[in-house]
Amino acid sequence: MRLTSETSSDDVREQLFTLGEIPGVLWTPQGATGPRPLVFMGHGGGQHKKAAGIQARARRFVAECRFAVVAVDVSGHGDRPTDEEYDRIATENQARVAAGEELAPLIARFQALVARRTVPEWQSVLDAVQQLPHVGAGPVGYWGISLGCGLGIPFVAAEPRVRAAVLGLGGALASAEDAARTTVPIEFLLQWDDERVPRDQGLALFDAFASPEKTLHANPGKHGDVPASEFDSTLRFFSRHLA
Amino acid sequence: MRLTSETSSDDVREQLFTLGEIPGVLWTPQGATGPRPLVFMGHGGGQHKKAAGIQARARRFVAECRFAVVAVDVSGHGDRPTDEEYDRIATENQARVAAGEELAPLIARFQALVARRTVPEWQSVLDAVQQLPHVGAGPVGYWGISLGCGLGIPFVAAEPRVRAAVLGLGGALASAEDAARTTVPIEFLLQWDDERVPRDQGLALFDAFASPEKTLHANPGKHGDVPASEFDSTLRFFSRHLA
Repeated sequence: MRLTSETSSDDVREQLFTLGEIPGVLWTPQGATGPRPLVFMGHGGGQHKKAAGIQARARRFVAECRFAVVAVDVSGHGDRPTDEEYDRIATENQARVAAGEELAPLIARFQALVARRTVPEWQSVLDAVQQLPHVGAGPVGYWGISLGCGLGIPFVAAEPRVRAAVLGLGGALASAEDAARTTVPIEFLLQWDDERVPRDQGLALFDAFASPEKTLHANPGKHGDVPASEFDSTLRFFSRHLA
Repeated sequence: MRLTSETSSDDVREQLFTLGEIPGVLWTPQGATGPRPLVFMGHGGGQHKKAAGIQARARRFVAECRFAVVAVDVSGHGDRPTDEEYDRIATENQARVAAGEELAPLIARFQALVARRTVPEWQSVLDAVQQLPHVGAGPVGYWGISLGCGLGIPFVAAEPRVRAAVLGLGGALASAEDAARTTVPIEFLLQWDDERVPRDQGLALFDAFASPEKTLHANPGKHGDVPASEFDSTLRFFSRHLA
């Protein structure tokens, strides 16, 4: 793991790093020492590790809960080189949707492909970050919606260090099988008028989680319209389960 | 309005009253003067104005938010005399369910009948309570699940003083029409394994609310198993919308 830059603002320390080919960012409380809960955040499709929605939430986790937060670019995103295979599939999928094919099964197949490469990458990032003295081997939470849900569910299912997860904007077609292997507490966000994930698919995914403690929060609006009040709820959820 | 008794504990003042034939209870902060937000609470079927679930929530609204809370016995419940018409219908419905008829439509019809009598009663209680100097004409919230939802939705739809409502454990069959006339913010609780309200019915009721701001919180478990974390969420919801 190689630290490439460090800045601070509003009592939040931001460290950019690379781990092999993976560019990442770690946020921790300014001056923090010793182990603490860590939230692993997965960004959305076409976004990156420092997308506005990731940063805003990450800084609140650090400032209000004194957690550490880590996010990395998914292959083909952010500071990573274009992935020719992904690009080819994305172009093909656009053509298929234009020709009248359903979007949801195409997204599902694509996310399954990306997840096979992403889960081991994220596990190696978790290994590396937890060796830093200001992060340590505390409890881990996962946060990810949309692509961050599609990649997050297999990660949470595979990774026993994750103790609780906020997921959402995903469907059963892509993720029901891994959801059925997930037993940690889940807060699941669903947008009632999601134009990308059919409502039934989202409800069926919530249903599929094996977790005895899971809660569905559904709100009106499209895929990108998750209301701000859910950020507050996310903070409380992680405070309850990680602190 | 006639006050019949008054007690205090843990800085919460409890006043029992009758308004005509309606027995009620008002909780306010000890020593409170001046107007404040008021939460009107509707109890569940077979329960009463001081049922454990009502009291526990009411005392938190008062202690943590300094709101006033009022609850009254629905006709045929608590300190009110047996209602022969209701009793006859309940007995008939039990026989019908035993003979294999579906429960949900029977509940729906019964609640519609009770609501026609209850809504004007509750409006008169609101009139009377808001004239007390330690309650006043502040913003009003409504809380009610199960029967409290079936009666609450027509009340909220009819009563412009209600600015926000926590409802749940109800279905579209009974309440969709009134829900479509409801425009205030709604937090709607659904039990994923509800043995009394079919899941589709609960989801359809959430869908039916015309409110631009509405949120569905669904949790695993049966009709009576709403998790404690939802009480906290209810407090924050009313704090946001009434305070």
